[in-house]
Amino acid sequence: MRWKCMVAFDGTDFFGWQSQAGGNTVQDYIERRLEVVFKQPVRIHGCSRTDSGVHAAGLVFHFDADWSHPVKHLLRALRVGLPKGILITAVRRVPDTFHARYSTTGKRYIYRLYEGWASPFESRFTYSLENRKVDTNKMKQAAMCLVGRHDFTAFAADRGDESREDPVKELRRLDVVRRGKSVRIIFEGSGFLYKMARSIAGALIDVGTGKLAPDHIRTILESRVRTALVVTAPAQGLTLDKVFYGDGEE
Amino acid sequence: MRWKCMVAFDGTDFFGWQSQAGGNTVQDYIERRLEVVFKQPVRIHGCSRTDSGVHAAGLVFHFDADWSHPVKHLLRALRVGLPKGILITAVRRVPDTFHARYSTTGKRYIYRLYEGWASPFESRFTYSLENRKVDTNKMKQAAMCLVGRHDFTAFAADRGDESREDPVKELRRLDVVRRGKSVRIIFEGSGFLYKMARSIAGALIDVGTGKLAPDHIRTILESRVRTALVVTAPAQGLTLDKVFYGDGEE
Repeated sequence: MRWKCMVAFDGTDFFGWQSQAGGNTVQDYIERRLEVVFKQPVRIHGCSRTDSGVHAAGLVFHFDADWSHPVKHLLRALRVGLPKGILITAVRRVPDTFHARYSTTGKRYIYRLYEGWASPFESRFTYSLENRKVDTNKMKQAAMCLVGRHDFTAFAADRGDESREDPVKELRRLDVVRRGKSVRIIFEGSGFLYKMARSIAGALIDVGTGKLAPDHIRTILESRVRTALVVTAPAQGLTLDKVFYGDGEE
Repeated sequence: MRWKCMVAFDGTDFFGWQSQAGGNTVQDYIERRLEVVFKQPVRIHGCSRTDSGVHAAGLVFHFDADWSHPVKHLLRALRVGLPKGILITAVRRVPDTFHARYSTTGKRYIYRLYEGWASPFESRFTYSLENRKVDTNKMKQAAMCLVGRHDFTAFAADRGDESREDPVKELRRLDVVRRGKSVRIIFEGSGFLYKMARSIAGALIDVGTGKLAPDHIRTILESRVRTALVVTAPAQGLTLDKVFYGDGEE
């Protein structure tokens, strides 16, 4: 039986999603919990990796295991025994053809900024600009150049491994939304290259503060070369908000 | 010169407000920072102590020190060098007659509950009821018995020291506000006995879940004896929201 799960986590204290030797990753904690619940090792497959310090409101993963009790008992069993910063928000049975990574049709990320010092209730999930301010109209203007189907190499980082991912992605939505001193950058796209959301956020922040001209974003995009002009924004501001699947599979 | 400061903090990782030997308290961190800024020890006076794990959005303290530069430079100097969970939100000069503790006219606390499992973005500041639900109408009915001027001994804990505080306090407001699965209990009063807000929150939660009848709250109050009937709600749900001062001194 295949199970689809949603998980929310505060990434501050974890070394990202993907399992690694130290064991302090979200995947490691969930797999250790599943091993207790199912009394055997269970491998989970996430929709994507997240970097150290990045958060998730609705990351999706799947696993295969037999469970003959009610589903809500499985949900409860998966909720207890995990660190406080990780919460399984949903679990349900899916066809064996479902794959958390390969079945996705898109993802939504949100990058949170604050003009000033974010309160301790927000600061774990927000990048505080301290004394800097941003012109969100300029950021919106720059964002328009990026929406659509493009080679995003100039806004990605090399993973340092052998992965050769297609650098052409469709960015369906790139909104800059201000509410008082809080600014959210909302990304929706078919897929995201390594550090792509944080690189676009970094470039838009530099446009907002006046370090880069809005028109320059198009030039950078078309160069298809990552340079020091594009700064990767800090991980703490980024949250993987939602993962989309076809056929109403959300 | 006397300075009035406001501070917000996430109490999760501190041993409360008041200075103690281990040094991991909010007061200790702020005093160490002030010593660096003023190059001499500076003693601060808080409006009240908060327990380990309790948060603050607007705790007020004062201190005396000479500062000849612009006030905004003092604010900036106090913002850097503090742990991430502590943020000085305001500083201003006040008359020497101002005292953070003795000049207060009232305080507001908020206790946050969640019917279910609060998300990792809220869970540090919320008490999750997990599978329990609360009837907020019953909670409101019970709250009405507590508003006014009463001896609150039945909803307080012994500090275990020699302090003999007047147990008669005026509770000016005790509201229960639901928004979806989130419930806030809002307290405003002249002053609060040790663990009084958390004890009232614990009793109201037990009324909400049906463990205590709403009418029973009045009987407990009038007994003026603290018994095991009143359970102290967990610290993580409580935030000192605002401190009031006379003469528009907020």
